[in-house]
Amino acid sequence: MPVSTPLLDRVDTPEDLRKLPESQLTTLAEELRAETIDAVSVTGGHLGAGLGVVELTVALHYVFDTPRDRVIWDVGHQAYPHKILTGRRDRIRTLRQGGGLSGFTKRSESEYDPFGAAHSSTSISAGLGMAVARDQQGGTNNVIAVIGDGAMSAGMAYEAMNNAGHLKSRLIVVLNDNDMSIAPPTGAMSAYLARLVSGKTYRSLREIGKHLAEKLPRFLHEKAAKAEEFARSFVTGGTLFEELGFYYVGPVDGHNLDHLLPVLKNVRDTETGPILVHVVTQKGKGYAPAEESADKYHGVVPFDVVTGTQAKAKANAPAYTKVFAEHLAKEARDDRRIVAVTAAMPSGTGLDAFAKEFPDRTFDVGIAEQHAVTFAAGMATEGLKPFCAIYSTFLQRGYDQVVHDVALQNLPVRFALDRAGLVGADGATHAGSFDIAYLGCLPSMTIMAAADEAELAHMVATAAAYDDGPIAFRFPRGEGVGVEMPERGRILRIGEGRIVREGTRVAILSLGTRLAEALKAAEELEARGLSTTVADARFAKPLDETMILRLARDHEVLITLEEGSVGGFGSFVLQLLAERGMLDRGLKVRSLVLPDTYLDHDKPDRMYAQAELDAAAIVKRVFDVLGSNAGGLKARA
Amino acid sequence: MPVSTPLLDRVDTPEDLRKLPESQLTTLAEELRAETIDAVSVTGGHLGAGLGVVELTVALHYVFDTPRDRVIWDVGHQAYPHKILTGRRDRIRTLRQGGGLSGFTKRSESEYDPFGAAHSSTSISAGLGMAVARDQQGGTNNVIAVIGDGAMSAGMAYEAMNNAGHLKSRLIVVLNDNDMSIAPPTGAMSAYLARLVSGKTYRSLREIGKHLAEKLPRFLHEKAAKAEEFARSFVTGGTLFEELGFYYVGPVDGHNLDHLLPVLKNVRDTETGPILVHVVTQKGKGYAPAEESADKYHGVVPFDVVTGTQAKAKANAPAYTKVFAEHLAKEARDDRRIVAVTAAMPSGTGLDAFAKEFPDRTFDVGIAEQHAVTFAAGMATEGLKPFCAIYSTFLQRGYDQVVHDVALQNLPVRFALDRAGLVGADGATHAGSFDIAYLGCLPSMTIMAAADEAELAHMVATAAAYDDGPIAFRFPRGEGVGVEMPERGRILRIGEGRIVREGTRVAILSLGTRLAEALKAAEELEARGLSTTVADARFAKPLDETMILRLARDHEVLITLEEGSVGGFGSFVLQLLAERGMLDRGLKVRSLVLPDTYLDHDKPDRMYAQAELDAAAIVKRVFDVLGSNAGGLKARA
Repeated sequence: MPVSTPLLDRVDTPEDLRKLPESQLTTLAEELRAETIDAVSVTGGHLGAGLGVVELTVALHYVFDTPRDRVIWDVGHQAYPHKILTGRRDRIRTLRQGGGLSGFTKRSESEYDPFGAAHSSTSISAGLGMAVARDQQGGTNNVIAVIGDGAMSAGMAYEAMNNAGHLKSRLIVVLNDNDMSIAPPTGAMSAYLARLVSGKTYRSLREIGKHLAEKLPRFLHEKAAKAEEFARSFVTGGTLFEELGFYYVGPVDGHNLDHLLPVLKNVRDTETGPILVHVVTQKGKGYAPAEESADKYHGVVPFDVVTGTQAKAKANAPAYTKVFAEHLAKEARDDRRIVAVTAAMPSGTGLDAFAKEFPDRTFDVGIAEQHAVTFAAGMATEGLKPFCAIYSTFLQRGYDQVVHDVALQNLPVRFALDRAGLVGADGATHAGSFDIAYLGCLPSMTIMAAADEAELAHMVATAAAYDDGPIAFRFPRGEGVGVEMPERGRILRIGEGRIVREGTRVAILSLGTRLAEALKAAEELEARGLSTTVADARFAKPLDETMILRLARDHEVLITLEEGSVGGFGSFVLQLLAERGMLDRGLKVRSLVLPDTYLDHDKPDRMYAQAELDAAAIVKRVFDVLGSNAGGLKARA
Repeated sequence: MPVSTPLLDRVDTPEDLRKLPESQLTTLAEELRAETIDAVSVTGGHLGAGLGVVELTVALHYVFDTPRDRVIWDVGHQAYPHKILTGRRDRIRTLRQGGGLSGFTKRSESEYDPFGAAHSSTSISAGLGMAVARDQQGGTNNVIAVIGDGAMSAGMAYEAMNNAGHLKSRLIVVLNDNDMSIAPPTGAMSAYLARLVSGKTYRSLREIGKHLAEKLPRFLHEKAAKAEEFARSFVTGGTLFEELGFYYVGPVDGHNLDHLLPVLKNVRDTETGPILVHVVTQKGKGYAPAEESADKYHGVVPFDVVTGTQAKAKANAPAYTKVFAEHLAKEARDDRRIVAVTAAMPSGTGLDAFAKEFPDRTFDVGIAEQHAVTFAAGMATEGLKPFCAIYSTFLQRGYDQVVHDVALQNLPVRFALDRAGLVGADGATHAGSFDIAYLGCLPSMTIMAAADEAELAHMVATAAAYDDGPIAFRFPRGEGVGVEMPERGRILRIGEGRIVREGTRVAILSLGTRLAEALKAAEELEARGLSTTVADARFAKPLDETMILRLARDHEVLITLEEGSVGGFGSFVLQLLAERGMLDRGLKVRSLVLPDTYLDHDKPDRMYAQAELDAAAIVKRVFDVLGSNAGGLKARA
């Protein structure tokens, strides 16, 4: 649906924007909102967050001298309107498509993106670094970090505030308070912000204050001034932030440019240390289907702009996330000790469904992976069976806690690592590439990877039953492969893989969902005269040594396959083979892993091809290993 | 020096303690302090922190029903008095010795240690997990987390507070405020606590409050009650904590049992949600040499109790830490863009010396590794050259920031990883075992490891010069090997190793300071008829492929050697060799890494022997590989 945008058509960059009179900005914002909705209706992506900051985006670029002034969007998924205003409108309908714009801010994409993001709560730290660098180098530009209230639950944001309050460098933090992150936020900070905004304390105290001034005896005059100053800070509501050394301004209506513009101008023109501007917005603002939706259209597939109907493709098989959550619930019905922990991702991890059945056994700790892990460790010491459901990429945030609080103490915390491997449109920032390496190096850690959705059910059951130490199981984004599902998962023997197909010359040892490609490759190899075994390792740690040594002994070629970086499963296999002398007399072994580069967002199939982890690449690799004359044919796939 | 401890002699466990009348506790505390001082004078270790909590330790075990009530000591290095009171007095002079007591709390050591620690700021999360588990299981015990003010600068503590305030489970947090962590703490939280303790606001507001009550008109009565409640919260000083959902009590004199005991009893008997008890103590309390020392005897070697003189061994070579700091200063004198970041470890990282010369270019961000890394990334975007000096084990806290903010954006942040590898008396919690694995899997990361102190100087110079992306260099705890030092470091070619000694049959490819052992092993092998090459890889990433392939081609045996876990350097070498077909026709390759277990504290030499990473183990390994008849002799070493 074409959108009429006469004003926006004249604005290619913020410089154009700043030529407009203030009186036209509300109209421009409306056009920007319509353009954002239309673009995302085509591409899918994050919608609600961007709609909530349309006016803020306009106001920031109008008041500040971007890109000389640095605007850092925390998480970056709300930056679509920002991209439209900063020279990227012509490509906005390539969002999240292969070769197109990223769904997040990205330094390599534009000078208007001074800091890339996708994980939350990094903006204040980055902004403080920029502010300090400016001071060191005698610069005068502004640095503005825009961060959501949900992101404020992360310790990293607090660390940065604490340091900023100490350094007193001029930094502007815009707290975009929409009472939502992806789900409604949790935690005491959220309750605190709600109290600020409801403002009841504000009113009653102001009333008292007025009367006090009349009634105070003269000798208290001086102290009253102090009390009043204190009251002001409380009235404006920011004691918590002011105690951390910030000057607090707010709350401000983030959809009203008549409020936003003067406040931001004042902030810009104030020569002071760190300032926090508390802006209240509504996620999904201005688009009725988003406003009315529970998740405010946080992430959407392409949709019809008029009706808001999303063109959800019909699934051929259940999503891994759903299989995980359903089978966790099955285990939990029989075992009261099972509890679940999520770090602000109840729907992404499937735990929203679990929480409906077990509200008292589900803990959403906010965006706080560090705490999530050690909180689970604490529960494990008391005999509970915590399942920490955290995306592979986000568990990086709790790495030291996994090492120091869980693995070192050998506590039975279960890690459900969703979004392991490549993740398609979300791109490199969300890829779960490193978990096998960063967990596999830890003594006492057990790591499983599901080859299909039935295997995932088994792994949930195995993790529930395993009580001897930490255990992680990884599974990818998206749908299963359509295998028959067991009613209940079966408890696997720790460290036992399985032979899926027997052959004689080539062995493909797969970990995780690349198994389907391994089987395709095996068929192709077989058709070309190479008898091929395919094994599913199931465990990256401990390895099924017996099976692996047998594969090495009985085959000319051994290919390991995983959707992970170097340093993971393939490395553990090579280490084992070296250790046991299996390489001494020669083995044509290759370890197929993700390439040593960050893969940009694209369709998953194309990413796998690029990563050389699909059937065609496996076949080609085998023929390369055996020499060009081995098969006599070019790879067909 | 024997200490007279008639009361303490009767107290083996807290149960004995609780039989004493309150009137004897002050004397007991004195005896406990004397015993702590005497023990540490023999063993060395952490002294100041323990002396600061002697009375608190007595009070907690007296008031609470340990071990049924869980007392979690954050960091755990202040727990020596706790160990003495909980059945471990007979072993207290084995602290930090091989086979002896750990210098931290440790679950496997005692039921009185419900959660092990050594890294800071984990206790509130663990305690909240225990409190929630108690609630789930209908328990009635207390959970008490004791955390220092320095540890409160870590985001993890904030995440836990935020979640605790939300969950409203009964949890007691004792904030042990001694205005010190290892160094004086930094950050706005620290300033806030100082204001609370100075209490000026407290006094003036209370005075106003008194007069208000007399003067208030009747119609304001109801609101005055509200205002008074508010005033109370401010008077007790804890608005910040109360906004986070905690009931705040304090400040309390932590060395006065007449204050501590009633407060803790009240807290114990209060049926409410989370409580924060703000206890003010003095690090090093009661031992004059500690009180007078700048670091309050944070960590000491054995010393003379009367004089306080520490028996510092004379160094044979400069410590790696010192070499790093001195050479960083040399680089910084020539390059104004160099800045240094530490996370509350200015002396441990050597940056205290750097800070004296470059106060404006040194940033101590507090215990806040996450922020430290992204703060550095922000500075790098603006053209500064940040050196993040963080121990290998502590960088685990900032892992996601290294991945997402630094490596993915290819920003030139320099990571100086001190304490890489085994660390002796500090034990498994402080070992820097995993950095090669967890960093090496990241595309765009460059990783160096210094083989000796001169190499470290070169690596500092190399990191200063390298501006194309992130670069890390690791070096161990302790002294160098005594090589001649260059006046200035030399810029190494990225990814270029060096042959240290030429041989023909065996090649030892070493990364880092195990080089000395590799050379020793080579001599032994040579003496036994095996001509041995030794190479120093210098780079774990990128690998010196030319050199490594040559070593593989020209030798019968190739041994890689590193002080790190599986998944690191050795894995990258094996991956390369497999990839290039070097294993196809056979290569006797072995990758010597740290064993897949957590090594307890001990003397470094014994740990290396246990890890089979010393010369004797290398020699033995080579003969094992070549078969028992290869050398004809048993390994002598």
